[in-house]
Amino acid sequence: MTAQAQIGSEQVFRKIIAHAKEYGFVFPSSEIYDGLQAVYDYGQYGAELKNNIKRLWWQSMTQLNENVVGIDAAIFMHPLTWKASGHVDSFSDPMIDNRDSKKRYRADNLIEDKADAYEAEGQPERAATLRSRMNALLSAEDLTGVRDLILEEGITCPLSGTANWTEVRQFNLMFSTQMGSVADEASEIYLRPETAQGIFVNFLNVQKTGRMKIPFGIAQIGKAFRNEIVARQFIFRMREFEQMEMQYFIRPGEEMNWYEHWKETRLRWHRALGLPESKLRYHDHEKLAHYANAAVDIEFEFPFGFKEIEGIHSRTDFDLKNHQELSRKKLQYFDEEIKESYIPYVVETSVGADRLFLAVLCQAYTEETVEDGEKTKERTYLKLHPALAPVKAAILPLVRKDGLPEKAQAIYDDLKLDFKVIYEEKAAIGKRYTRQDLIGTPFCIAVDYQTLEDNTVTIRHRDTTEQERVPIAELRDRIGRAVSFRSVFEQL
Amino acid sequence: MTAQAQIGSEQVFRKIIAHAKEYGFVFPSSEIYDGLQAVYDYGQYGAELKNNIKRLWWQSMTQLNENVVGIDAAIFMHPLTWKASGHVDSFSDPMIDNRDSKKRYRADNLIEDKADAYEAEGQPERAATLRSRMNALLSAEDLTGVRDLILEEGITCPLSGTANWTEVRQFNLMFSTQMGSVADEASEIYLRPETAQGIFVNFLNVQKTGRMKIPFGIAQIGKAFRNEIVARQFIFRMREFEQMEMQYFIRPGEEMNWYEHWKETRLRWHRALGLPESKLRYHDHEKLAHYANAAVDIEFEFPFGFKEIEGIHSRTDFDLKNHQELSRKKLQYFDEEIKESYIPYVVETSVGADRLFLAVLCQAYTEETVEDGEKTKERTYLKLHPALAPVKAAILPLVRKDGLPEKAQAIYDDLKLDFKVIYEEKAAIGKRYTRQDLIGTPFCIAVDYQTLEDNTVTIRHRDTTEQERVPIAELRDRIGRAVSFRSVFEQL
Repeated sequence: MTAQAQIGSEQVFRKIIAHAKEYGFVFPSSEIYDGLQAVYDYGQYGAELKNNIKRLWWQSMTQLNENVVGIDAAIFMHPLTWKASGHVDSFSDPMIDNRDSKKRYRADNLIEDKADAYEAEGQPERAATLRSRMNALLSAEDLTGVRDLILEEGITCPLSGTANWTEVRQFNLMFSTQMGSVADEASEIYLRPETAQGIFVNFLNVQKTGRMKIPFGIAQIGKAFRNEIVARQFIFRMREFEQMEMQYFIRPGEEMNWYEHWKETRLRWHRALGLPESKLRYHDHEKLAHYANAAVDIEFEFPFGFKEIEGIHSRTDFDLKNHQELSRKKLQYFDEEIKESYIPYVVETSVGADRLFLAVLCQAYTEETVEDGEKTKERTYLKLHPALAPVKAAILPLVRKDGLPEKAQAIYDDLKLDFKVIYEEKAAIGKRYTRQDLIGTPFCIAVDYQTLEDNTVTIRHRDTTEQERVPIAELRDRIGRAVSFRSVFEQL
Repeated sequence: MTAQAQIGSEQVFRKIIAHAKEYGFVFPSSEIYDGLQAVYDYGQYGAELKNNIKRLWWQSMTQLNENVVGIDAAIFMHPLTWKASGHVDSFSDPMIDNRDSKKRYRADNLIEDKADAYEAEGQPERAATLRSRMNALLSAEDLTGVRDLILEEGITCPLSGTANWTEVRQFNLMFSTQMGSVADEASEIYLRPETAQGIFVNFLNVQKTGRMKIPFGIAQIGKAFRNEIVARQFIFRMREFEQMEMQYFIRPGEEMNWYEHWKETRLRWHRALGLPESKLRYHDHEKLAHYANAAVDIEFEFPFGFKEIEGIHSRTDFDLKNHQELSRKKLQYFDEEIKESYIPYVVETSVGADRLFLAVLCQAYTEETVEDGEKTKERTYLKLHPALAPVKAAILPLVRKDGLPEKAQAIYDDLKLDFKVIYEEKAAIGKRYTRQDLIGTPFCIAVDYQTLEDNTVTIRHRDTTEQERVPIAELRDRIGRAVSFRSVFEQL
């Protein structure tokens, strides 16, 4: 990206954030108290959009796939869960304090910033060497070495300007709290840092009560929490966020086939939502997590660059094996076809719901210049897939008299039994169209004098602004087809 | 209830809990680690049922009411929120420890148990006196007096048998955690104990960006957390639970009209879900919470008695006024009709989603004796409203040969684009019907040899077990109408 293009992108992103706030999609959390860092609330249109995204994912998983079912496990889990998963021991960031400014930093970020500076100075090799030394030290968990590297590079605190650094320590990213009030029963528990473990601990419950045969999947949508040191980019990295995860349980040795299968299936799904092929790409993990033998991200091109919206991971039997060991409960499956018992392997698909929301919003945000008679004017609208749009249609009487409001209200009263629709009678019709454009409503239905005569209305289409005359009796079917999930599913 | 009826009810409740576990509705959380007290996970059918209940509530609020919108605020909120709401100072239970057993108890529960004992001994007046003395002490926050009452009544620890009690102390029910890792930024925050405050702090954001005019409502569904001392009755009282709350903002002085309106509207809604009038009742609060000037519970008759599933509260301007004071942000509304600015009053409707789930499950659980030729046999099924049932239809080929599976699969592949349906070909058809009965599937669609000839199938109805012949082409409409939310909305 050129420097100028980057500035342009930053401007666009700022506009999208402002739009999200101004039109009721995303508000900073507890804003009246000046906000809570890296936490956001979904407003009246954002909540609808997010619900639609979540429901579409849920149905894509549990309704279209005969062998995938969904569960809803609690955020609170037994603390041993996080021992087994490795989070207690190794879900942490290396932190260092400057003794003069009293500020704490992520040690790796300080070094990264230094490497970036080398690059900016035209010393890419020096940057590369520094990064590879740092990665080696982090892999070896050599925190003293990391501190030595910071000193050796002469890295100073941006605030105090000194190199008066403490030791480097690991800081766990899980939020913890105390459960139970009775003194001898109270125990430290964690807010789950990922939803996946709720699926693993329920693996046998679901398999047995649902009489599931391998391969089968368990899907889940839910909140997860990470005490991120550096949270940024609006709702892209939050301390409280929502995941849409599916764990697919398979026969050991077949993981690469299923990994490829889900990799393709999931990319196709994002395309069906309206994210264009040109803005989606795979990014293979070079450095694999301790539990994975293959991993890929699906990245979307946000205004701030290509970033992960979903991960597909071949997790082997890492989780189930550790849970079996720690819980001393057999987490095995008897495979009738090959007459063998084994701990299944797992391929995981994991979407960040908030990130996908942001991708959909960025993609939908459209500014265009339209001709208005002899002048031109700017039009901003959200080109959301009708199945995702927060409001499906607005019913608008042309004027507030002569029985038009009553006629329009009657149409509204019928359509609202099936769809989220809006009735609005104030302001000029053009202004009302504009308002609906800004929240992405695909259809505006104008009720005029002709409606009183022949029971037809005008449908004005959001993306083209074209209008067509349609009988009231056809509205339900017309809107129903356009906004149905079926229309998305048929593209998969 | 007679003693015998009570035993019967307890047995029924135990059966329902076992059924919920065995058929994939509710699992104890982290069961492989022997569970986490008062936390539960929803299994593959429970998650679907709960989602349907939540979605029906959401649409009833935000789709049927022109002036109600929904939001989705984060669980994490600024800590001052809970100072303003009164939770930091007064959301607590009085606790007392026995020095010999080291066990901790809720002081009021110990006294309640004593009062129950008096009643069982035929001394109801003594019980009433004890209760009223306790309530007076608790209202006056006289914890020393509460301890004196325990000593005076000779109440001993059930474990140690002694009256060697500590002082009574208040124990706050909010879960707390630390946010932020940077030393000087870290702060204690709480997991929200109710979702309502997420609505109050966003009141102006929603009102302005949505151009809402009073009266209007903001709805929300989300998790809340309370470190309950005594959590019991399955999913009725959990430490992590889900609320469906709607705050209705109104002109001061009009609260009693709206209170009555929502009281009636909400009861009607529960009836439309299939909860019978005879098992629903109002229970007026005699002792009002500090924020309310009127409050009523809607109670459902569970096997363990009439208990609250929803509360309707007239909260006055308590919350908004306190937030305005603490945040120093004006939380006022300018009412154009009367040309006045004021802090709106609020009427709240607050459903416990898990409690409603339990009510629906208890109501649906049906055991009946049916005639089977000359013998009789027991049949158990879940008589769920089709709009709430986890699975809408099961597609069942009569036999696994002669092209019947392929024909059935084709029907399944079409219907799954619209509904959660199941395809099952194994076991005798009667056994497959039984399985669907146990999870409450309203329709079983049998594909037989005649289907190959005339494209008709048999629909077997869950509640009556009656069968009828229907063309395949009609299935989508038939099922669609029966399971649609529209069918529920039309009864409201």
